[in-house]
Amino acid sequence: MPLSAMKPPRVDPTPIFELFRGSYATELLSAAVAHFNLFGRLAQQPVTAAELAQVLGLAQRPMVVLLTALRSFGLLTCDAQGRLHLTELAREHLLPGASFDVGDYIGLAANNPGVLEMVERLRSNRPASHESGVAFIYREGVASAMEKEAAARHFSNALAGRAKNVAPLLAARILLPSDARLLVDVGGGTGIYSIAFLQANPNLRALVLDRPEVLKVAQEMAKAYGVADRLQTQPADMFRTSMPMDVDVELLSNILHDWDVAECRTLIARCAASLRPGGQLLVHDVFLNDSLDGPLPIALYSAALFCLTEGRAYSAAEYRGWLVDAGLEPGPVTPTLIHCGVLPGTKVRA
Amino acid sequence: MPLSAMKPPRVDPTPIFELFRGSYATELLSAAVAHFNLFGRLAQQPVTAAELAQVLGLAQRPMVVLLTALRSFGLLTCDAQGRLHLTELAREHLLPGASFDVGDYIGLAANNPGVLEMVERLRSNRPASHESGVAFIYREGVASAMEKEAAARHFSNALAGRAKNVAPLLAARILLPSDARLLVDVGGGTGIYSIAFLQANPNLRALVLDRPEVLKVAQEMAKAYGVADRLQTQPADMFRTSMPMDVDVELLSNILHDWDVAECRTLIARCAASLRPGGQLLVHDVFLNDSLDGPLPIALYSAALFCLTEGRAYSAAEYRGWLVDAGLEPGPVTPTLIHCGVLPGTKVRA
Repeated sequence: MPLSAMKPPRVDPTPIFELFRGSYATELLSAAVAHFNLFGRLAQQPVTAAELAQVLGLAQRPMVVLLTALRSFGLLTCDAQGRLHLTELAREHLLPGASFDVGDYIGLAANNPGVLEMVERLRSNRPASHESGVAFIYREGVASAMEKEAAARHFSNALAGRAKNVAPLLAARILLPSDARLLVDVGGGTGIYSIAFLQANPNLRALVLDRPEVLKVAQEMAKAYGVADRLQTQPADMFRTSMPMDVDVELLSNILHDWDVAECRTLIARCAASLRPGGQLLVHDVFLNDSLDGPLPIALYSAALFCLTEGRAYSAAEYRGWLVDAGLEPGPVTPTLIHCGVLPGTKVRA
Repeated sequence: MPLSAMKPPRVDPTPIFELFRGSYATELLSAAVAHFNLFGRLAQQPVTAAELAQVLGLAQRPMVVLLTALRSFGLLTCDAQGRLHLTELAREHLLPGASFDVGDYIGLAANNPGVLEMVERLRSNRPASHESGVAFIYREGVASAMEKEAAARHFSNALAGRAKNVAPLLAARILLPSDARLLVDVGGGTGIYSIAFLQANPNLRALVLDRPEVLKVAQEMAKAYGVADRLQTQPADMFRTSMPMDVDVELLSNILHDWDVAECRTLIARCAASLRPGGQLLVHDVFLNDSLDGPLPIALYSAALFCLTEGRAYSAAEYRGWLVDAGLEPGPVTPTLIHCGVLPGTKVRA
């Protein structure tokens, strides 16, 4: 065991992240009340999410993010026909003109910069980076922070601060088959998840796919953690670069939440194609309730993802559907840490 | 009983307010981590709040607001000598360079407009209105929204949205002596609290002191609630205008939290002087824990008050000290609604 063996933290850092994401509650609530008159509209006539999106001029992704949050706040429910209804809480306190309406109080924040920014994100369905041209994610043709050495290092390390807490639990809770030889870590960043798996599985090798500037950090990390001899890196555009074949384990750790549905399906299909029969795709991510009505911390994290990337949080049901469509058999979700869990999909033997 | 008798809401609106104030958690946490290096500083050497304020160049009010929040987040504790210490949570996850430090992740929000605004408020110890010149509060010589008819109406009604929920419970839970004739509602705004007391106490008269534009709304409200014959208004600067003498009940409802300590003492002393012996001052407000370490929702509301006014939330212990100094005997706090409670102080008979 190397000196720098990874282990989980003693104290769960989840409360820090929940406090950190409080602003999304303020912004989504204020946007719904003061910019979209969402409660007033729904009180007139219950409509489906799709109908509401059309009335508000919102795309599907922002509509899901906003409605998931409002449902997790206890303000909306959804009936069996998919029609949205105000809860008693919303009907008494957020319906314009109601005796106990506090909407104008909430509206005092209507023009706060964070609220206006959220409204712009919801209306445009574009991450904040779209205007600045520096995205956290990489897509060919869009300037990405991950293509610039200093920025790539800074952001990768910042994200690794969270990942370091989670990775040892992921590696401890997923028992790889003893004959697993190769793990491919798609968009693996600093490689921290691969490193945890390498430390827990002495016969395993890992291949980290990411942008060249990010991989410099991964190589340094692998040295620091004593697994450089078993960790390879390969510069890649995960949507285009050829994947190795007959892979034992593919890992998508906190990747799919950066992308919209079509890209998620593409990435899952590419991973599935590169697996050997019986091999596993590990989707390590956060999971919304299958009914897309919470939990609250994931609904707020989904808003963060929505604002910063092209994705959002998804439910296990959504992931399971995509895994099945890619020829993978989904397993149960095992929680790791900081709201994350791992959902395996096994490639059906021919 | 008039048709428009006030009654409490069926559903407690408190969760809406807690969600609404989430942004203050984001902003105070990010400010502490990314702008003040507060955890790094305290790890080197435990210091008192006063010493920390000096090092950071912060005045007392912002220091209390920030530390109360961080203690309510579970990140700091305070020993018997008043020295601040990192909790295990903070030591493991917010100490720069610690193995499981997530400070750089929190730092990704360092330049968000809301965070920068909070840092400016903390450093300047001035409400956001100071630059724009339009304050929610009224102080002679500073332009106040409450001096302009449309703005006064809008803000008063917005604030009344919250007050309408709370006022019936305040009036129900404070049983005035049957011989109480006059209640003076200092900074009474729309008069909603007075109206609730008038409806509950048929022999009572109320005098609402506030700015002239605000009092127009109060007169309309009194008519709508059928108590116009017992509600008088008087244009006033509550720091200067002569108060009536031999008053039975003075009400400071959600007023003191708008002001710094010196002004709170002044207002309490002015109210005390105008009470008859045996008369009561009712301080209706939110209350921090006496140890100034929470509760979390009040700590976040305190940050809102800090940003928008010259005040913050205070503890019952702080209020009790000021009441005693003004010759009033404090009673227990009785909760009303939306984090509020009422603390009575009885004027000691000569």
